[in-house]
Amino acid sequence: MVIVLKPGSTEREIEDVSRRIEGMGYRANVSRGEARTIIGAIGDDRGKERLQSLESLECVEAVIRILQPFKLASREVHPDGTLVQVNGVVIGGQKLVVMAGPCSVESRDQLLAVARETKAAGATILRGGAFKPRTSPYAFQGLEEEGLRLLAEARKVTGLPVVTEVMEPDKVEVVAEYADIVQIGARNMQNFSLLKRVAECGKPVLLKRGMATSVQEWLLSAEYILSGGNPHVILCERGIRTFETATRFTLDLNAVPVIKKLSHLPVVVDPSHGTGHWEYVGAMARAGLAAGADGLIIEVHNKPEEALSDGPQSLKPERFARLMEELRRLAPALGREL
Amino acid sequence: MVIVLKPGSTEREIEDVSRRIEGMGYRANVSRGEARTIIGAIGDDRGKERLQSLESLECVEAVIRILQPFKLASREVHPDGTLVQVNGVVIGGQKLVVMAGPCSVESRDQLLAVARETKAAGATILRGGAFKPRTSPYAFQGLEEEGLRLLAEARKVTGLPVVTEVMEPDKVEVVAEYADIVQIGARNMQNFSLLKRVAECGKPVLLKRGMATSVQEWLLSAEYILSGGNPHVILCERGIRTFETATRFTLDLNAVPVIKKLSHLPVVVDPSHGTGHWEYVGAMARAGLAAGADGLIIEVHNKPEEALSDGPQSLKPERFARLMEELRRLAPALGREL
Amino acid sequence: MVIVLKPGSTEREIEDVSRRIEGMGYRANVSRGEARTIIGAIGDDRGKERLQSLESLECVEAVIRILQPFKLASREVHPDGTLVQVNGVVIGGQKLVVMAGPCSVESRDQLLAVARETKAAGATILRGGAFKPRTSPYAFQGLEEEGLRLLAEARKVTGLPVVTEVMEPDKVEVVAEYADIVQIGARNMQNFSLLKRVAECGKPVLLKRGMATSVQEWLLSAEYILSGGNPHVILCERGIRTFETATRFTLDLNAVPVIKKLSHLPVVVDPSHGTGHWEYVGAMARAGLAAGADGLIIEVHNKPEEALSDGPQSLKPERFARLMEELRRLAPALGREL
Amino acid sequence: MVIVLKPGSTEREIEDVSRRIEGMGYRANVSRGEARTIIGAIGDDRGKERLQSLESLECVEAVIRILQPFKLASREVHPDGTLVQVNGVVIGGQKLVVMAGPCSVESRDQLLAVARETKAAGATILRGGAFKPRTSPYAFQGLEEEGLRLLAEARKVTGLPVVTEVMEPDKVEVVAEYADIVQIGARNMQNFSLLKRVAECGKPVLLKRGMATSVQEWLLSAEYILSGGNPHVILCERGIRTFETATRFTLDLNAVPVIKKLSHLPVVVDPSHGTGHWEYVGAMARAGLAAGADGLIIEVHNKPEEALSDGPQSLKPERFARLMEELRRLAPALGREL
Repeated sequence: MVIVLKPGSTEREIEDVSRRIEGMGYRANVSRGEARTIIGAIGDDRGKERLQSLESLECVEAVIRILQPFKLASREVHPDGTLVQVNGVVIGGQKLVVMAGPCSVESRDQLLAVARETKAAGATILRGGAFKPRTSPYAFQGLEEEGLRLLAEARKVTGLPVVTEVMEPDKVEVVAEYADIVQIGARNMQNFSLLKRVAECGKPVLLKRGMATSVQEWLLSAEYILSGGNPHVILCERGIRTFETATRFTLDLNAVPVIKKLSHLPVVVDPSHGTGHWEYVGAMARAGLAAGADGLIIEVHNKPEEALSDGPQSLKPERFARLMEELRRLAPALGREL
Repeated sequence: MVIVLKPGSTEREIEDVSRRIEGMGYRANVSRGEARTIIGAIGDDRGKERLQSLESLECVEAVIRILQPFKLASREVHPDGTLVQVNGVVIGGQKLVVMAGPCSVESRDQLLAVARETKAAGATILRGGAFKPRTSPYAFQGLEEEGLRLLAEARKVTGLPVVTEVMEPDKVEVVAEYADIVQIGARNMQNFSLLKRVAECGKPVLLKRGMATSVQEWLLSAEYILSGGNPHVILCERGIRTFETATRFTLDLNAVPVIKKLSHLPVVVDPSHGTGHWEYVGAMARAGLAAGADGLIIEVHNKPEEALSDGPQSLKPERFARLMEELRRLAPALGREL
Repeated sequence: MVIVLKPGSTEREIEDVSRRIEGMGYRANVSRGEARTIIGAIGDDRGKERLQSLESLECVEAVIRILQPFKLASREVHPDGTLVQVNGVVIGGQKLVVMAGPCSVESRDQLLAVARETKAAGATILRGGAFKPRTSPYAFQGLEEEGLRLLAEARKVTGLPVVTEVMEPDKVEVVAEYADIVQIGARNMQNFSLLKRVAECGKPVLLKRGMATSVQEWLLSAEYILSGGNPHVILCERGIRTFETATRFTLDLNAVPVIKKLSHLPVVVDPSHGTGHWEYVGAMARAGLAAGADGLIIEVHNKPEEALSDGPQSLKPERFARLMEELRRLAPALGREL
Repeated sequence: MVIVLKPGSTEREIEDVSRRIEGMGYRANVSRGEARTIIGAIGDDRGKERLQSLESLECVEAVIRILQPFKLASREVHPDGTLVQVNGVVIGGQKLVVMAGPCSVESRDQLLAVARETKAAGATILRGGAFKPRTSPYAFQGLEEEGLRLLAEARKVTGLPVVTEVMEPDKVEVVAEYADIVQIGARNMQNFSLLKRVAECGKPVLLKRGMATSVQEWLLSAEYILSGGNPHVILCERGIRTFETATRFTLDLNAVPVIKKLSHLPVVVDPSHGTGHWEYVGAMARAGLAAGADGLIIEVHNKPEEALSDGPQSLKPERFARLMEELRRLAPALGREL
């Protein structure tokens, strides 16, 4: 942190601020410029949040962060990319992963049909929502535990590992019992009670980016899981809120190379939620891989026009199969396999 | 909802879409324009979400919402403003309320000192965080139940009702036992499991706006609580995420008249989180009331430069007292009392 | 500026960066922390932009700005608030100003009718667009010079000074000939050729904030006018682009106290463009004054339902008159006059 | 347009609104729903802006747009993709184009060195700024006409056509004399006077997206040029303003498939301005092509650490050459050539 003093700060104020910095356990390094005196607070970052409070001193103009506030999620500390292993599927390696399936598990027939078709097309992980976070209380809220059982059945039939969302701490145990990857949705990305609980469960976690969270905050949420003892974190970019309404969200592919620079964690891209329209899913799936993502998560539904949730962004199985062919041609040109 | 068909849609497609609309329980009203055929889906709104899935039909260009998707939160259904009563304090009436106190409960001494001073200055409700949602896992996470007990003690000493945040469904019971108003924070505003649980607890709920949620989504979150049987909802505007970094968030006062038009629920404004800097709190507190808010929630700390959270945005008690004097002069000019 | 080096930077790299900083005319102050070495570049700010290019060195992690990049617009350099005088009306003083009138000058009858009614209600400056920046080429583009002549006539009839927009450098002369205040619209706020030309014309300039410009960039645009020799700059907050669609833009009243802290320039608020709906204009006009603005600019139209532009946000004259009464009650409670 | 009436609207009000719609030249189609009466305004879109003003009638709840407001830019009217030809280079065809060069023309040596190296690496168009829109008045403002002459010389030496920005209507003639493609920068994208003038000049126009403009508004700016008689428009996505600060802007690649659906105009992507950091340029260049762009525009500088503008985002020539090799491997996997 750098503490910038207001112009005209007295020696006494400089000493006071320095003393406070040292009282919080850092070393203070005073640098007197022409226009401003600035004081560096040198020491361990964790907990440096508290230095922010110095901004409420009359003589302080601003407290500016110099370092990234996360540690375990940082590539600086952990230069090699992390590989997350799920029933033989590796995420973050040379081989790209494609997670696919319906937004919601709606019925046994629907799920098994979609699971078989996405597997046939080359998907390596099955997605499907049993607990559904819905904006409206009047919308379909998911099949809940029945949905989990159907996912387990679909895994048995197809051999595909399963990723599904958990929405509250108390359900982590039951979700982790059925799922191979536990998903934290965008709306719960700063639900810290939930993050602490999934850290404990030990299962791999797919951590979606919140729609208004910066990459830095997203990595701090990952840090909650990592510091809770669970190193198996997969990040998922799924679109942020911007002024543009032509797409439902703005899929922020810039986050992919930013994550790859700052962190060692694998990252996948969700072009279905990111754009909200099936017509844009193919282009953004290709772009996501080209930006350097380790994989994709794509919504597929056998009858999207009758879907109980997110029909407009779901691909029909035949469209998904065609997209997989395109991605298979693309992967080698990016130095990856699919 | 209005379903817009692509140009060149055939009679067969128009019939197919109409049949599907009717199959979902609505009446279809076809209107043939020069450039487009549009079909209105007429009927009860609740559940109309499903019509969105028609967008995945090849012949459909767009599905456009006409009505607001909430009902119980709507002023159309409930023209008179709702009054929420808390231990004799009325929120939403002629008299403005000011909730004040520290961001976090840090110690008995700190809390009692601040509670006494804010009460002396005219605050009518005491705020204070016991469970703290912190972006970093290394930051102070709150005193938890010990914090709740201190809040109860401060209430006993000062007579002020207490508002404090709950972060997970399992803690609703204990928080509701100690608190007079249960707060849902910005990061949990679409934590639907939590919303369902606070609906059940029956206590008044202060529902903060999420940093990336539209007014419509915010009212849908209120609808979760209302439809769960709890009519005592107070909305709280606390700033949204925008590109501007001069303030920590962008306090969106436009939301106040918008809410007043769309809904009957009372709304208060949080200029502390909204701006993130104590120097801007006074101006935005005044502006919040002038925009029509029913009250304010303001962070006050006796030693903000040593605060364990949000020091930069906390007022010292003497500054808070001066602000209260200004607000007392302002209220009558707005046709309100304080 | 502070230049943050990557971990593991060598002494040779530190020297190289220091030498480059000094080559650009600054003094380099090296501070070796535990995790990072940072180098302060000390000296005159103007032109410090170039230091940003050091970020492209392999050993540099980031270049962080410490000071605001503007000088003439800064309150630090010019502690007293600037008063802009326009034909006897003072902007930035104790007395609040209200600029009012139609979005577009549409006809002699319309303009004179509105001018007379807004004057009668207490407006002190007449607004009206002659050159109109319209998003669509098919929309009404303004009466152009004929509009300017009508504005001059309305001034003669009512005695109200006139503010109107100029859209291109070549028209500055003719607009300045007719207008008392030359307006730079939101879409031209970073049209630097135009800023340089209005600096030369010497007339007071109403500089609207761009819909995606930060306060810092806005003050840099003001700096173009000030450094071009024209000190008569009035800032106008008119709403920024955010994800919220309940209002046309998000009127950012936080910018008012931020401007008052950073700059000595007067600032007015435009609740008409800021919200886009006449029903919200009153609340946000009151809030704008309460936030500390020096005045308002409000759209008034005698037949808004037939307006050629921005009808939805225009007040009818009788509504404007009622709002003025409310504002007159409000002003003394804010320590101002109206 | 669809006009939504408030609940409880009377027959008289319905008739009044219908009459007004017909008075503006449209046909009115009344549809009475359970909760609302809505009236469709059927007829030519151009000019439909005026219908918006009906929102100021007491009985009108909202006026909702159904159709895109542009015509000449629309793929509906012009199904085949437009090819823009520049001295033998085709933009919008099977073959991808890469425009490259320095942000600013700084000197003859710099420009010729960069032009030769980018040409050798495979660039087909030379970029370079002579007139520079700079946020600060104290920053380097470009070599202006001397810069144009140097660009012409670089074209003569390398054979590469030249794209350069024009900032004001009066300079269109001189810029068009030297340049092969005239660029409208992000800050001037809604400078309608400038758009009208570049329409007249007849030269191909590279129209950058504004940092807060929706795709719809961007296409309306293109419509200004098209309706002014100049069909040679190339769109350029260069990043929008969002809350994320890890990148300078948020390059919105979603806009690429959206444009391809809505419009026939070619679109290129600018990963240099879009990200603001050279380390992210490669990933986003690849992603831009994978999203379906017709080409790229990339900043290259021989000494980025000494650049007078935008050093941090400029590639060194050797890095640019390596990127071109990667793109050449990528193109065939996307069904394109390079």
